[in-house]
Amino acid sequence: MAVVRGGLGDVQSRSVTPVITLLTDYGLEDGYVAACHGVIAGIAPEARLIDVCHLVPSGDVRRGAAILAQTIPYLPVGVHIGAVDPGAGGARRAVAIEAGGRVFVGPDNGLLSWAVTASGGAQAAYEITNTAFMLSPVSPTFHGRDVFAPVAGRLCGGHKVSDLGQEIPVDRLVSLAAPTSVLREGSVEGEVVSVDRFGNAQLSIAAVDLASLGVRMGDTLGVWLGRRLLALPYRETFAAVPPGELVAFADSAGLIAIAVNSGDAAQRLGLPPGAHVRLSPPP
Amino acid sequence: MAVVRGGLGDVQSRSVTPVITLLTDYGLEDGYVAACHGVIAGIAPEARLIDVCHLVPSGDVRRGAAILAQTIPYLPVGVHIGAVDPGAGGARRAVAIEAGGRVFVGPDNGLLSWAVTASGGAQAAYEITNTAFMLSPVSPTFHGRDVFAPVAGRLCGGHKVSDLGQEIPVDRLVSLAAPTSVLREGSVEGEVVSVDRFGNAQLSIAAVDLASLGVRMGDTLGVWLGRRLLALPYRETFAAVPPGELVAFADSAGLIAIAVNSGDAAQRLGLPPGAHVRLSPPP
Amino acid sequence: MAVVRGGLGDVQSRSVTPVITLLTDYGLEDGYVAACHGVIAGIAPEARLIDVCHLVPSGDVRRGAAILAQTIPYLPVGVHIGAVDPGAGGARRAVAIEAGGRVFVGPDNGLLSWAVTASGGAQAAYEITNTAFMLSPVSPTFHGRDVFAPVAGRLCGGHKVSDLGQEIPVDRLVSLAAPTSVLREGSVEGEVVSVDRFGNAQLSIAAVDLASLGVRMGDTLGVWLGRRLLALPYRETFAAVPPGELVAFADSAGLIAIAVNSGDAAQRLGLPPGAHVRLSPPP
Repeated sequence: MAVVRGGLGDVQSRSVTPVITLLTDYGLEDGYVAACHGVIAGIAPEARLIDVCHLVPSGDVRRGAAILAQTIPYLPVGVHIGAVDPGAGGARRAVAIEAGGRVFVGPDNGLLSWAVTASGGAQAAYEITNTAFMLSPVSPTFHGRDVFAPVAGRLCGGHKVSDLGQEIPVDRLVSLAAPTSVLREGSVEGEVVSVDRFGNAQLSIAAVDLASLGVRMGDTLGVWLGRRLLALPYRETFAAVPPGELVAFADSAGLIAIAVNSGDAAQRLGLPPGAHVRLSPPP
Repeated sequence: MAVVRGGLGDVQSRSVTPVITLLTDYGLEDGYVAACHGVIAGIAPEARLIDVCHLVPSGDVRRGAAILAQTIPYLPVGVHIGAVDPGAGGARRAVAIEAGGRVFVGPDNGLLSWAVTASGGAQAAYEITNTAFMLSPVSPTFHGRDVFAPVAGRLCGGHKVSDLGQEIPVDRLVSLAAPTSVLREGSVEGEVVSVDRFGNAQLSIAAVDLASLGVRMGDTLGVWLGRRLLALPYRETFAAVPPGELVAFADSAGLIAIAVNSGDAAQRLGLPPGAHVRLSPPP
Repeated sequence: MAVVRGGLGDVQSRSVTPVITLLTDYGLEDGYVAACHGVIAGIAPEARLIDVCHLVPSGDVRRGAAILAQTIPYLPVGVHIGAVDPGAGGARRAVAIEAGGRVFVGPDNGLLSWAVTASGGAQAAYEITNTAFMLSPVSPTFHGRDVFAPVAGRLCGGHKVSDLGQEIPVDRLVSLAAPTSVLREGSVEGEVVSVDRFGNAQLSIAAVDLASLGVRMGDTLGVWLGRRLLALPYRETFAAVPPGELVAFADSAGLIAIAVNSGDAAQRLGLPPGAHVRLSPPP
């Protein structure tokens, strides 16, 4: 999984305001996100609410998991709601997971799993079944508003996670398979994890793995995309090459990204999320 | 109109922080929304501001009215600004309407009318003419920033609604016609109210009206779209059918929605807002 | 440059909560903005954070500068972060600029320059080099999170701008050339500064310049677009003409805008940002 460098560290201890964060695939064209904000503001008016992202592609649990995991080191300790939930109203459980002083609240479909790992791993987990913590009635299709938001608000108000319902063994939680990243025969294979607004293709390959192969900033990198082999400069930043040129760099999450300075690498190279990539040291 | 189930109920009484909410069609590509936030923060720094939605399609008063009405039961009591205002700078009045302990502020073009109804109906209304409550000068095209935002901020600061200007008889307020929903000859006719990000087509038909026809969860529903007749499963949630299959369900606002699990029903069936739909019980 | 009318004026003095504002081109599809919010919330939990805009087109420094300059008169005095930074990680400096009681924090690439001018001009400027104010390590491609956000947070916490690094002469700061606006031979020439969500084309021509040519509200205006000459009504607002008709009006920033009531003027006339426009009085 993503190796996350840096983060807030001891800065976090200064915050006394309870913090609730919210990641969903609800979009911004309706009042769905506002309904969650409103429920939280009604229950926990003292809480500070941070929107992590609401434009996760509809039902894309892996993308939601990646965004949450890469953002969580920079969020104050708090209650972290995730609601990308294609099985809402189906058989999946609603859970609250304690990890690294944080509480993650959402569906047990793997959405939270990478952020839990990035927070040090699950210490305890509870199925959310206590209806006293929910709005009534609960819409089968809007657990964000009717279950996760009020649960988060009440946890900020002093309620215990263990009041939510039965404890679940943490090894029974649904986990997403991490994006592959394999060191093999002097090269490292991975996949495109995500493509951001700038067209940068973020790989599942950590900068530290590339370093372990002896690749240094300033080297030329061999980049295999299927049968195509590109020779790209490996630099500190996309701005180190002239506009319009391809470059590989270690991005702000510590992962290798392929970019075009002032251009769209994913489009130019045809690199959708999931595409296989292999990197090798200079020959 | 939309029958809204649930809502915050007694939870609302816990909030002591004044709350201002904001619904506009300003979009997010400019600083328009931020200017409103800034004006409010300058006048009422203690207020909590909740964005309801800023991506109402430009000038679409009916869509803005629907979003506000369906979200309002989940927002804390406060001052609620609506600014979808194709007639800005024209003859329409600016108004403040008291309903259910809330104050709605915006143009008198019907935008606020469904939310006022959902809050129990207008108790009093005032035309906003007192320039002491506005910024100076007032831009004819940006009443959100220069009229509605400062008015809302000052109402949070303790000013009375009756200080805004002359009282207006509530039956003189502009009201939007509610989306049609007619029980007739054992079936119920309505229209598509909105299509959300997931492609779910929300109808103007309340789940309780369908129940009054004897339709039960688990039944097969007759769905007439013009001359086409579909037989759709009526379930608790879209997730109750396999991915790619059509389904009707009671959505999070208590209205019937037509969906495709993990797909886009509005696109597949050609169901834009306003399209006529008739539902009938299983034969 | 944009002549900004109005603004908050003495209202600003009421705010005691420290305010941080944030303008970026990070988009809303990732967790980038949330990471900045999280860093600030961890360092300065008492600060109020206002998002100015995050949909500045990627790397479009001029557009970012225009949005910030037109919004700043309506924002409470505070610390104002700008992060549209195509040269991130390159040679450009990170700076903090004092102007009109405000502190602007961002890259020294001109992004902040129009807002600084709109705030009365730079009083002092400092290069940001003190690593004690930054996260560690600093990602070369995400100074918003690792430099600007923690610097802003710490300035709210009482640190002095002069602690950030060496003072820079204010006349050495990078400034963007202002959009051209030239009074010549009884007409005024300018360019399209921006096109908003409604398709209104905002010109670099101030309403006061048009007035100095003797043009009055209600007149017919000569509008030259290259060799095309249009005769447009000059009105208080786009709503003063029937739907579908072209109109020129003084917009909410005090600039002339060309619009179609309930339509898209930029699209109809082919008016991208930068397009040359000349206005002349009625013949």
